[in-house]
Amino acid sequence: MEQEVTLKAGERIDQLSSQGVQIIQSSEVFAFSLDAVLLAAFVRPSQKRRALLVDLCAGNGAVGLFLNRRFAGQVVEVELQQRLADMADRSIQLNDLADRYQVINADVKDVYQYVAKDQADVVVCNPPYFKDQPASQKNPNPYLAIARHELTIDLATVCDRMSGLLKMNGHGYLVHRPDRLTEILATLADHRLEPKRIQFVYPKPGMDANMVLIEVIKDGKTGGSKIMPGFLVADASGEYTPAMKKALYE
Amino acid sequence: MEQEVTLKAGERIDQLSSQGVQIIQSSEVFAFSLDAVLLAAFVRPSQKRRALLVDLCAGNGAVGLFLNRRFAGQVVEVELQQRLADMADRSIQLNDLADRYQVINADVKDVYQYVAKDQADVVVCNPPYFKDQPASQKNPNPYLAIARHELTIDLATVCDRMSGLLKMNGHGYLVHRPDRLTEILATLADHRLEPKRIQFVYPKPGMDANMVLIEVIKDGKTGGSKIMPGFLVADASGEYTPAMKKALYE
Repeated sequence: MEQEVTLKAGERIDQLSSQGVQIIQSSEVFAFSLDAVLLAAFVRPSQKRRALLVDLCAGNGAVGLFLNRRFAGQVVEVELQQRLADMADRSIQLNDLADRYQVINADVKDVYQYVAKDQADVVVCNPPYFKDQPASQKNPNPYLAIARHELTIDLATVCDRMSGLLKMNGHGYLVHRPDRLTEILATLADHRLEPKRIQFVYPKPGMDANMVLIEVIKDGKTGGSKIMPGFLVADASGEYTPAMKKALYE
Repeated sequence: MEQEVTLKAGERIDQLSSQGVQIIQSSEVFAFSLDAVLLAAFVRPSQKRRALLVDLCAGNGAVGLFLNRRFAGQVVEVELQQRLADMADRSIQLNDLADRYQVINADVKDVYQYVAKDQADVVVCNPPYFKDQPASQKNPNPYLAIARHELTIDLATVCDRMSGLLKMNGHGYLVHRPDRLTEILATLADHRLEPKRIQFVYPKPGMDANMVLIEVIKDGKTGGSKIMPGFLVADASGEYTPAMKKALYE
């Protein structure tokens, strides 16, 4: 049963029909990308009602919301930016998910004030991708700059909190950029997060990967990473592949 | 102009028609695999006659021989096992390549006794893939056990010698198993070898990768690894793909 919520200026309601969910977005503030759709689709489904999932750097809550049918437990979304956390909160109401979902408007660094360590079954994260280098061009929109650049959190801190929140043998899921692959795998290893499955995402045939999806297990056995078949987003003509259409619409 | 060479018991001459080269093999001692074909095909061509390429863990010399048209410089093949080095030596004669190719029958650990440090433009290596774990099952054939298991050399030593031999900005090429990806990338980084291009090899559609090809640059810029489109060996029916046929026959 859908609830009524108030939209703020510039906001719209989009739908991810494959997951039967509506989500409040705003092109000026934040709108989910394919990265969020693919990260959610990469998470192993779980119908355990007592399981706890934490979404770090949750933005407008897209990843968690996209998991509403595939994950039956409690979902905690942690987002630093008040404006984005507020959108996530209203999307939870809109989809009548308040019994299972909550948003915490806080810095991911302070997450242990809200969720105890070693309690999460699953942690997901679509973090800022780009290093905060003095010379790097940032988005003039501060909402997007914080979401995309490591201004308020970096990869090591993301991995540290992911590891700290997870139970032993809990599963973490990360989407990131493949050009940082060496650093990503080393940083995960430094934080007791052992890659289990890795999938590269290719925008079109013949192009290099522009996204990497990684499933880790806390204190998992070293070695034994599986490199899954690549995920192709669009065919040579630019049309979404059947796999991409399935993730979006079916 | 081909030369006559003497074959020993159990040996045969195989051909890689794509590279117009003949190679002495033996199912009891050593025969090249697709790994060697794909590693050679992954190396960037160079027509510089003064360039130096070193093949570490050269086996019967397959990778170097497969590069004979694509690399115009000097090739040094380093192989520990006398029986394999001897096959490589006779294959060089067979293909009339003795003016550019030489085999060194030595432990890769001792390579600096034969090739000075910081001199190689290119180093290639198809090393033993499997860790030497007490419990691991080894091939009862000692030639194959040494070629496949890290009995006489391990990944860190391979990376150390690859790095030591390469000039600054020289290119190294490695083929390995993707289940050790985290360790491989970390070990390369520990030895000043920055991954530039990575390609995963898939045996069939829908299967996980069973091989990874990595191009590194000594003292290269960190970050910026490109994950190339996957290389598919065979189609669903098991027939070689056009790309695989090209590497083998054209």
